Amino acid sequence: MSYSVSLSKLLEGIGAKEGSKLSVASKGKTYTGILMPHHDFSGKDIIVLKLSSGYNVGVKVGSGTEIKVLGQQEPRRIKESKEEGKPGLPKISFIGTGGTIASNTDYRTGALHPALSASEIVDIVPGLRDVANISAKMLFSVFSENMNVDHWQKLAEAVASEINGGADAVIILHGTDTMGYTAAALSFMLGDVPKPVVLVGAQRSPDRPSSDAPSNILAAARFCVSGRTAGVFVVMHKGLGDDLFAVHAGTRVRKMHTSRRDAFESINVPPVAIVDENGKIEFKMKGKDVTSEKVVAKTKMERSTILLQYYPGMDPALFEGIMMKSKGIVISGTGLGHVGESMVPLIKRACDNGSVVVITSQCLNGRTNLNVYDTGRDMLTAGAIAVLDMLPETAYVKLMWALANSKNAEGAKKLMMAPIAEEMGDRRFVDE
Amino acid sequence: MSYSVSLSKLLEGIGAKEGSKLSVASKGKTYTGILMPHHDFSGKDIIVLKLSSGYNVGVKVGSGTEIKVLGQQEPRRIKESKEEGKPGLPKISFIGTGGTIASNTDYRTGALHPALSASEIVDIVPGLRDVANISAKMLFSVFSENMNVDHWQKLAEAVASEINGGADAVIILHGTDTMGYTAAALSFMLGDVPKPVVLVGAQRSPDRPSSDAPSNILAAARFCVSGRTAGVFVVMHKGLGDDLFAVHAGTRVRKMHTSRRDAFESINVPPVAIVDENGKIEFKMKGKDVTSEKVVAKTKMERSTILLQYYPGMDPALFEGIMMKSKGIVISGTGLGHVGESMVPLIKRACDNGSVVVITSQCLNGRTNLNVYDTGRDMLTAGAIAVLDMLPETAYVKLMWALANSKNAEGAKKLMMAPIAEEMGDRRFVDE
Repeated sequence: MSYSVSLSKLLEGIGAKEGSKLSVASKGKTYTGILMPHHDFSGKDIIVLKLSSGYNVGVKVGSGTEIKVLGQQEPRRIKESKEEGKPGLPKISFIGTGGTIASNTDYRTGALHPALSASEIVDIVPGLRDVANISAKMLFSVFSENMNVDHWQKLAEAVASEINGGADAVIILHGTDTMGYTAAALSFMLGDVPKPVVLVGAQRSPDRPSSDAPSNILAAARFCVSGRTAGVFVVMHKGLGDDLFAVHAGTRVRKMHTSRRDAFESINVPPVAIVDENGKIEFKMKGKDVTSEKVVAKTKMERSTILLQYYPGMDPALFEGIMMKSKGIVISGTGLGHVGESMVPLIKRACDNGSVVVITSQCLNGRTNLNVYDTGRDMLTAGAIAVLDMLPETAYVKLMWALANSKNAEGAKKLMMAPIAEEMGDRRFVDE
Repeated sequence: MSYSVSLSKLLEGIGAKEGSKLSVASKGKTYTGILMPHHDFSGKDIIVLKLSSGYNVGVKVGSGTEIKVLGQQEPRRIKESKEEGKPGLPKISFIGTGGTIASNTDYRTGALHPALSASEIVDIVPGLRDVANISAKMLFSVFSENMNVDHWQKLAEAVASEINGGADAVIILHGTDTMGYTAAALSFMLGDVPKPVVLVGAQRSPDRPSSDAPSNILAAARFCVSGRTAGVFVVMHKGLGDDLFAVHAGTRVRKMHTSRRDAFESINVPPVAIVDENGKIEFKMKGKDVTSEKVVAKTKMERSTILLQYYPGMDPALFEGIMMKSKGIVISGTGLGHVGESMVPLIKRACDNGSVVVITSQCLNGRTNLNVYDTGRDMLTAGAIAVLDMLPETAYVKLMWALANSKNAEGAKKLMMAPIAEEMGDRRFVDE
């Protein structure tokens, strides 16, 4: 556990071990909770308890501290049940990556338990068995804030492998924090993917009664089966109720709330479709039909790419090192895409140095236009390009991909200005 | 004009000068527009014309190019009219800073003409004379993307001077790009300001028939006079029509669209009030009453402060230099405020180095909470603080101010966690 020697001995002496339920009385206060492993940043004499609220508390153990063991917890049982395929139903491959949706919180140690045997997914999603035959694999188990380019690449390969192996659709269970970035990455890497690839997350873990995981997964599966629309999407709650679910284009979606179930929004376009609680799908956008083509994952990414937000007082001297070292630079400028005039010469030096500088807007909504004001025209003359209504985060992901999939900076710029996965420009609305 | 010697001679020879209307025929295309001064980034032989659309075009002048002078434009006339104070009306001081609202585009040269004599403001805002006695000064004339800490400081001093000199309210005409940042800066610098201080912008310049400048200014003036509420606010269109105007708290407002009239939104709170086209004010929040106190502008700011957005793939090695050099670091993390685990040791080094690291969320909506997941707890242990529902941009401005107005990092952290100008935590709703 790596508590201090004296504290470890004290805990052993009273029969306390990781997962034991303890009461710890110190300085007039008593804490009751589950003993957690020692935390690297905590002092060696600070005992860490997981409270029933799910939060951890650290209590410094001194001479006056009284510790009692209230009980030992049973190891969590993992349910298993045999899967039977139903003939005639389409096949959906589930890929788990971690995050709230793919986890049952293990209150014994606070660790995440990957709930991803096929049977467990079916268990938490009533009705899923009637929609499709399910297979599932756990690709990795990370909180999505720890996802990086390696994960995107492995995930794209895994999705391609499932589709080329006969899956009718792939559903990816993903943490919500960076789900938008991953959706954009898969959108570019998988290009003309012939089947639906849907990322699904949850704002509450599946072991809580209030979890949005089952309803999001069911809506995603229904969209995969009945929507018959190819592409990379995110499916999450449309509102706070469990009755409507939004299908977002993978390049247009952004997490716009820290915690609400309906945190995900399509920016600058309507959602692709709305799925209701009975599985009825209302399309808002024209999509591509599914085909039986194979897919090739183009997963090369130029990692020397950065995303910077301009702000008043931004010091070009401070950012010079970072910008001159980076092959791709996405700036979320103010308004139509502006930066302060003191940043323009640095943009010019970066462009002259062979970097690609891409301008987006921190307003998120609307489209950049560097032709209206002097500042914008100076930025264009310096060599920057503006990418219409593309989200800053999508532009960052696309720029990594464009740089790795073109011969030079000019080629990357051309790729940036050409819509590849519905990420910019006008979309095809459903006629009404 | 600094065109090349040969081009300058050619232009002089045909009587063309800055502001002349020309037609330029080159390679089968003819452009008609106003001759603009040479642009530093353009080639010396590229003639710059402002088209009637307002956009500039550069045409390379070669041996086959034909240039004709179509006419000379009269210098723009500046209207003047004598102001007469009406007894009994409150006094509003207008301060111009530049930006679209404070300008008539001079189509002769494309330069901005500061439209800020008192008479000109009254001229563009029908009905303003009936609301208040107006005085006006032009403090500076910059596009707001070029505003920086110096401008904020001068502006805060100027506002304090007007209020202490007897103004009942101050209205600041400001470009929209960074109006939210300036509003936050004034909110902290002016603290318990005893009068309304309102920033107003426009998405269309006042010389266009569709300008939102007059109606925004009138709504701001009515709020100042009838609202009797002290504080720093932004007043802009509530919707696309000219019938409703939102009064936003200066620390809660963000430009959320590149170009719409209703681009400004209060985030995480309702607007303070809505003003209708007849001047009726509906308060949504409880405000502070105006008083006859004086105000002291606390304008010190720690400029060694940065704002960074976390993104997957962010390389701690690349950002180490910037972070270790900065006394204040605001990070807009993912979801509840997370960064990838590879960034946590760098946050710890920055904190150990005496810097203050403040966590906000790139979701913008909702509030940060670093107690829910391991990553967040690691960030807290590393020394970071999370500032509830404060906007990243407001946190950046507040951190500059908090560092300059406290003795040490611990003092700055305490200031960051204490609501000063409605920037965080629960606000006082109007009982309904």
